[in-house]
Amino acid sequence: MQPLSSNQVLDAQELDAADPLRSVRDKFDLPEGVIYLNGNSLGPLPKATKARMAEVVEQEWGTGLIRSWNSAGWVNLPQRLGSMIAPLVGAESDEVIVADSTSVNLFKLIHAGFKLNPGRSKVVTELGNFPTDLYVLQGVERDNAIELCAVPREQILDAIDEDTALVVLTHVHYKSGEMFDLKTVTDLAHSVGALTLWDLSHSAGAVPLALSAAGVDFAVGCGYKYLNGGPGAPSFLYAAKRHHQEFEQPLTGWFGHAQPFAMSDQFEPAAGMTRALCGTPPVLGCVALEEGVRLACEVDMQDVRRKSIVLSEFFIGQVETRLIQFGFELASPRESDRRGSQISLRHPEAYPIMQALIADSVIGDFRAPDILRFGFAPLYTRFVDVEQAVCQLEQVMLSERWRDPQFQVRAAVT
Amino acid sequence: MQPLSSNQVLDAQELDAADPLRSVRDKFDLPEGVIYLNGNSLGPLPKATKARMAEVVEQEWGTGLIRSWNSAGWVNLPQRLGSMIAPLVGAESDEVIVADSTSVNLFKLIHAGFKLNPGRSKVVTELGNFPTDLYVLQGVERDNAIELCAVPREQILDAIDEDTALVVLTHVHYKSGEMFDLKTVTDLAHSVGALTLWDLSHSAGAVPLALSAAGVDFAVGCGYKYLNGGPGAPSFLYAAKRHHQEFEQPLTGWFGHAQPFAMSDQFEPAAGMTRALCGTPPVLGCVALEEGVRLACEVDMQDVRRKSIVLSEFFIGQVETRLIQFGFELASPRESDRRGSQISLRHPEAYPIMQALIADSVIGDFRAPDILRFGFAPLYTRFVDVEQAVCQLEQVMLSERWRDPQFQVRAAVT
Repeated sequence: MQPLSSNQVLDAQELDAADPLRSVRDKFDLPEGVIYLNGNSLGPLPKATKARMAEVVEQEWGTGLIRSWNSAGWVNLPQRLGSMIAPLVGAESDEVIVADSTSVNLFKLIHAGFKLNPGRSKVVTELGNFPTDLYVLQGVERDNAIELCAVPREQILDAIDEDTALVVLTHVHYKSGEMFDLKTVTDLAHSVGALTLWDLSHSAGAVPLALSAAGVDFAVGCGYKYLNGGPGAPSFLYAAKRHHQEFEQPLTGWFGHAQPFAMSDQFEPAAGMTRALCGTPPVLGCVALEEGVRLACEVDMQDVRRKSIVLSEFFIGQVETRLIQFGFELASPRESDRRGSQISLRHPEAYPIMQALIADSVIGDFRAPDILRFGFAPLYTRFVDVEQAVCQLEQVMLSERWRDPQFQVRAAVT
Repeated sequence: MQPLSSNQVLDAQELDAADPLRSVRDKFDLPEGVIYLNGNSLGPLPKATKARMAEVVEQEWGTGLIRSWNSAGWVNLPQRLGSMIAPLVGAESDEVIVADSTSVNLFKLIHAGFKLNPGRSKVVTELGNFPTDLYVLQGVERDNAIELCAVPREQILDAIDEDTALVVLTHVHYKSGEMFDLKTVTDLAHSVGALTLWDLSHSAGAVPLALSAAGVDFAVGCGYKYLNGGPGAPSFLYAAKRHHQEFEQPLTGWFGHAQPFAMSDQFEPAAGMTRALCGTPPVLGCVALEEGVRLACEVDMQDVRRKSIVLSEFFIGQVETRLIQFGFELASPRESDRRGSQISLRHPEAYPIMQALIADSVIGDFRAPDILRFGFAPLYTRFVDVEQAVCQLEQVMLSERWRDPQFQVRAAVT
């Protein structure tokens, strides 16, 4: 790491000293010497998760064995986790449940939403949406009588019309960090009789959400980003209570049955969100997610949002001072109320530059073709981290280290 | 525990002494004083899994963070696990992959199989099949132009005809332990142009399987039963290589894309089994499953089968000697080649009897309405365990302890 000037250290340190969330960082097990600005892709390990995972493996599984489905409450993990996540997204406790992956849950709720709007065939989404959202929609279009209308961001509002059954959008864009106004788009959709399904993967845990107040119909979100649930953590689903009586999803597995252990031959959907479950819950993943969610529940999401904005503004200020000369451009909106909790920079050599930066232990990520992405997770990111990250990036550019051939080699996951 | 007579102990101990698999038990962390005959529902904890879970949590997630997708090989876990499971089911290494739950995978492959047989609408399955198999099929029927034909076991072969697109059966019945002849049924289906999808949840890891030799088209199986992958472990899928070019499944998420990290807007299915993936793999669950599968890979499945039969015969012999007088009936086939690795007994008071037995630390399970189910997992079940379990059950009946009101109370999971 490059040393910072005393003046720079002071500013960032003052901001850290004034941060009401500064003590939360101690609850994470962040590796020494690493500046981690990729919690929007995989959140770090909460300290409590280590002991809890050992407990679920050794005591609940090892000693409790099959009995732990009852005695350790495994059977209710999906509902218990849902009720913990609910206040983070502005929902009632029985409007959220945890199951499967975000992709699988998108599939369930695309079908659910589409079915609730019979006679309409159009589903509106954004070109350049997160790939899995587009791919799942394309699979649904291939196999069903829907007409997928994927348009550039600026054409979305015009595309929502009286043929539209469902609008499927990601609240905070994975690449640019640009944030939709949830209520404005939802109101517009409702005004023409369309329903909404929001992907909250890049907002839950980082941005205050008010799903009920915004009248959102359906939502999904990711457990392993700002909820710090661990690699491949299960996902959450939301359905507004007004749809609970009627909504149907296609993955009618035994955990979505009204009485799974009656082992009857006939499927009968459970009440409420439980019908969104399919197979046996992934217990180890659920338990890890619970610890991550717990940390988000202990803080005020308004504090999180305020810090996120100040972190982002601080970063942009540093970028404008030190990095513009190297050809970086801001790829996120300049107005803080139009962004989530990440800042993306555009540079033609984004890939090798990011690899060189990661080699210096400043971990952001690259998104094809030309984006360097930096996530600011207010639960553990400090202002000194942000300042030092920019300082390192400046050094990568000044030294031209990114030209080293080792940084051109593409890894399996980029 | 009741003491056994010296004569009884001798017989069981002799069988244990002659068991070529006797040392494998030491690789499991079985609780003291418990006789565990429910590995067909949730396999016990392999000792190696404890350290491996700590490593994946603390080192790979905690220290490696996002880098572990490449450096720890997380990105290839589904394929790596598939290639480990492949020899256990008699498949080639690239014919098996790990993903999602058994229920979700059934959904994928029901659609895949149905699509490969256009012009036919009938799907044949068994009444009384494992509930999730029936429920998923019923959901597919509700939403698609298929005609589900669920018939009693003895009518299945007759139901498979030239209108049949797909036959969906469970190889070893969850309740009775009765086993289909995989090749006979598959040959019959093929003779009229139908495809087969086998649920191997109650056979993989306990019964030798030869999917390729039997010509099976598709299969799914469970990770948390005889593969000892932990509660809610991910599931595996198999598709015969002859279908790899053509098969399509409806859950077209980003991990099933030919180039997921190109982040293109257009879905393009990956080659081979990778297209059966949907969302981000559940890393913690996959890592636990890998340790369980490793133990099954270290033994000869023919040894496993031989021991399974001797354990089952030994149990039946003990039951016939000691338990028939209390009204127990054998609910599994008497011929060992028609059974998997469990024995089920029928009794009108099965529920409280099993609860009383579990209270005595002999863990089998109950299946509604009247089945006591005992799984004999050859990797860790000893003959002395089987003998002692019968002895305890005899004591429960002699003492009439099962009449205690505490044993009548139904738990959430039974």
